[in-house]
Amino acid sequence: MESIKIIDIVGTAAFSMAGTFAAMEKKLDIFGIFIIAFVTALGGGTLRDILIGELPVKWMLNPSSGLIVLLSAIAALLFKTVIKNYHNVLLFFDSIGLGFFTVVGIQTGISLGFHPVICIALGTMTACFGGVIRDISLNNIPLIFQKDIYATTCIFGGIVFFILLKMGVTIMPIEIICLVTVVLFRLLAVKYHWQLPAIWKKEKPTL
Amino acid sequence: MESIKIIDIVGTAAFSMAGTFAAMEKKLDIFGIFIIAFVTALGGGTLRDILIGELPVKWMLNPSSGLIVLLSAIAALLFKTVIKNYHNVLLFFDSIGLGFFTVVGIQTGISLGFHPVICIALGTMTACFGGVIRDISLNNIPLIFQKDIYATTCIFGGIVFFILLKMGVTIMPIEIICLVTVVLFRLLAVKYHWQLPAIWKKEKPTL
Amino acid sequence: MESIKIIDIVGTAAFSMAGTFAAMEKKLDIFGIFIIAFVTALGGGTLRDILIGELPVKWMLNPSSGLIVLLSAIAALLFKTVIKNYHNVLLFFDSIGLGFFTVVGIQTGISLGFHPVICIALGTMTACFGGVIRDISLNNIPLIFQKDIYATTCIFGGIVFFILLKMGVTIMPIEIICLVTVVLFRLLAVKYHWQLPAIWKKEKPTL
Repeated sequence: MESIKIIDIVGTAAFSMAGTFAAMEKKLDIFGIFIIAFVTALGGGTLRDILIGELPVKWMLNPSSGLIVLLSAIAALLFKTVIKNYHNVLLFFDSIGLGFFTVVGIQTGISLGFHPVICIALGTMTACFGGVIRDISLNNIPLIFQKDIYATTCIFGGIVFFILLKMGVTIMPIEIICLVTVVLFRLLAVKYHWQLPAIWKKEKPTL
Repeated sequence: MESIKIIDIVGTAAFSMAGTFAAMEKKLDIFGIFIIAFVTALGGGTLRDILIGELPVKWMLNPSSGLIVLLSAIAALLFKTVIKNYHNVLLFFDSIGLGFFTVVGIQTGISLGFHPVICIALGTMTACFGGVIRDISLNNIPLIFQKDIYATTCIFGGIVFFILLKMGVTIMPIEIICLVTVVLFRLLAVKYHWQLPAIWKKEKPTL
Repeated sequence: MESIKIIDIVGTAAFSMAGTFAAMEKKLDIFGIFIIAFVTALGGGTLRDILIGELPVKWMLNPSSGLIVLLSAIAALLFKTVIKNYHNVLLFFDSIGLGFFTVVGIQTGISLGFHPVICIALGTMTACFGGVIRDISLNNIPLIFQKDIYATTCIFGGIVFFILLKMGVTIMPIEIICLVTVVLFRLLAVKYHWQLPAIWKKEKPTL
């Protein structure tokens, strides 16, 4: 239980920091930066809870996640030069967040008796759509619609999850394997610049 | 019943293809294209279900609509040159989707006992707001806020619906007439370039 | 009760007019203008109701708020030159809307037993996020993420609200003081160009 809480905090904080940096690039003021940090960290889970009707959304009932977002946004603002030097640390934390939120989303779907495809969609949404709402708010086309290996990582982790479940593995090890799969897959994708083939590219480069 | 399912599939597929083409223009990758196709086809109904509190949203309980979106997006990607040559066929299917989703939205409002104005708003939302969310996600100002005959078609069809209802016509013929009205009105609007008078134009063209 | 209704109407109308003017600047057609007016006036409350699960959203059950939006949007279109000359009147009405919707949002949070921080967030959301959705729809980065004194006004009013509540003041005077605080703070902020210190400014102007 305790370890889950720590992973949750680490993931939320990493997502909040990623949002803070994106908002600073657009030169938002303090209020805007905090809203973008909040949306990046909690937007995916919020969208999931709205779509499944788990309302009021969780962060209203317990302000602790909002506090984590606020504190890590402040930390990102104060120590931005330091933190950016630890780019690899941030990427590692972000990957842990990605894996953890994927598992949380899949579990939510399973507890509601949804089809595995919908469960994987919920996992991907929980992990990735905070970033989508952030990008749309900042007037960008969502990054993950252009560099798909990010969301693909969650989908791949989700498929691993359900293969193991079919094989009769118990839930605890499945969760850990799914999380580790997402983290490894993401780190390898970043390191080796993996990208899905982009269909439209067939046309342009020949010119 | 069967004919309703076929119309639903045709409309969903046409909307999904329209979304696929819009996403390809922005050079999204495969994941992004599928999300935009999904949002275009099912976003309007999803927004409607959120606003009325019909949660979880329908496509979570039954993944078949997601499957239709996926298959028609793949078809649009594979046969894009062929399909684009059949521009008129796609427009026709799109109009059928527009009419069908308008009727579905109005029916939803009636079943909840809403005021006719709200029912027509729900019909228009179901038919048009998938495209709105798509345009906002792709960083465009929604097309239907600039070329209003699209949404006006649904509003007009909705008014016809409630006039016939007041006149005591039974529900089945009303639905068919409403659908046909929207399809015809839309095809005529496209053919003859109908547009509502734009208020702001009064100022500019004199310069 | 009557006075509350009048303040509600004044605030909704002022927000609707602000939305209408923003939509006209982007040269939307009549349909687009009305949707943006609607979203500006009722979007904040709608988002709040979705997040807390108060569904169907209020404007579906009672079309009178939609009617106020429509009538004030038409008024703004017809008398735009006249109204814009009364810029100060519009700012005053807009500030009243800001204060009123802040109080409404806070009250909603209290009635659900939420933490004061969440209540203030709900008040700020009710008052400010219609404008956020408007700006995102019009392809702008939300104004209040860049000029924070707008949302800060609501947060400040909310803090005053809960300080008075802790001090044992009864609810009616608290509501009035909170509303007046927001209105005064906002008018002073506009008059004296108050802005929160923007963190990123430290780096740039030295170049």
